[in-house]
Amino acid sequence: MERHFDEELNELKERLLLMGGRAESVVHKAIDALERRDSALAEEVIKDDHAIDELELEIDERCIRLLALRQPVGQDLRFITSALMIVNDLERVGDHAVNIAQSAMKLSREPELKPLVDIPKMATSATRMLTEALDAFVRNDAAAARHILVEDDEVDHLKSRLFRDLLSYMVEKPDTITRGIELILVSRNLERVADLATNIAEEVVFIAEARVVKHHMEERHAPP
Amino acid sequence: MERHFDEELNELKERLLLMGGRAESVVHKAIDALERRDSALAEEVIKDDHAIDELELEIDERCIRLLALRQPVGQDLRFITSALMIVNDLERVGDHAVNIAQSAMKLSREPELKPLVDIPKMATSATRMLTEALDAFVRNDAAAARHILVEDDEVDHLKSRLFRDLLSYMVEKPDTITRGIELILVSRNLERVADLATNIAEEVVFIAEARVVKHHMEERHAPP
Repeated sequence: MERHFDEELNELKERLLLMGGRAESVVHKAIDALERRDSALAEEVIKDDHAIDELELEIDERCIRLLALRQPVGQDLRFITSALMIVNDLERVGDHAVNIAQSAMKLSREPELKPLVDIPKMATSATRMLTEALDAFVRNDAAAARHILVEDDEVDHLKSRLFRDLLSYMVEKPDTITRGIELILVSRNLERVADLATNIAEEVVFIAEARVVKHHMEERHAPP
Repeated sequence: MERHFDEELNELKERLLLMGGRAESVVHKAIDALERRDSALAEEVIKDDHAIDELELEIDERCIRLLALRQPVGQDLRFITSALMIVNDLERVGDHAVNIAQSAMKLSREPELKPLVDIPKMATSATRMLTEALDAFVRNDAAAARHILVEDDEVDHLKSRLFRDLLSYMVEKPDTITRGIELILVSRNLERVADLATNIAEEVVFIAEARVVKHHMEERHAPP
């Protein structure tokens, strides 16, 4: 029975990593669609998101079944309740990718504003944070998770710079306002992806150290 | 033991309702600060959000303790795992109120763009949805929860109208762009509050009927 439960936990980890991989790749696809002005690719994102939604339901069920049948305690109980949260976060990553894809579709119908620089960088950082957070989760690696909390600052920095750049653009040429706002909304969606990765990293520290990083910003940069 | 467990569940419900009330009132306060151009009131929002964060940790612990010590199954297990999700959603409502309060502070330092009409309406709808969703949760009332899923359309409608209005304003007067974007971001935060209320309503239908509304948009308007 013990060995069997371990196998079930490993399966749960694998399904979570699979879902994480899908969430990461759907964000990349949305940004590719935006960069290449490819509305067919943007439409694929919406289909991919349905597959992520299906995974959410499957993994939720898996967690609830484990709680009911195995009645875990301690570290295992923390792991499963955290998995429930993380699945929720990953599903939201998919939703943000859909928002970005919708912006990509709108923008593909308008003249190009200017080549994208900061948005692809933000996307790379945000999805890397997501992968690292999930890896830290399955390896129960609090040190790696703490590292992610710092990376979030980089994404915020890019977002602010993009905002200022677009703003001066829009003030100069009011006919760029609609497109500029659309790009600002894209950057907010990427910021939210990074925030969700941060949530996951906080969960990891929480279950690994059974102490609370959440809501204690001052501890982010200096582990006690 | 059975009676005691019921009492613990009732306490959990009470704490959730308290947290929900706080989340609702902090959104109202942020919108009041925006309307009255009152940056001191906006600063209060940030303090109030810390109290909400504390409640999140307390209720999380309560849920995990109940899972570990009582090892519930069936409806009770669903209720507690759903409570974990809902607490997460309510904490995010607080974060959205903080974002709105930060916008209010920025806007209070600039001349008024125009009197707010759609934003207060959006706030009223979004917070009403939140209260109704939590009420439906503690009463396990799937019919009431289904009703909330429809209300979300109203918030989306207001958001789109506001966007169009502000856009034509900004195109006409480029010196209003910064303020216009800030108000658009406020409306996106309110939209997210309504989405979080929708999430909660979906959980209610899920635990009440043990079937899945999530990701099946076509069922929203016509319960089978």
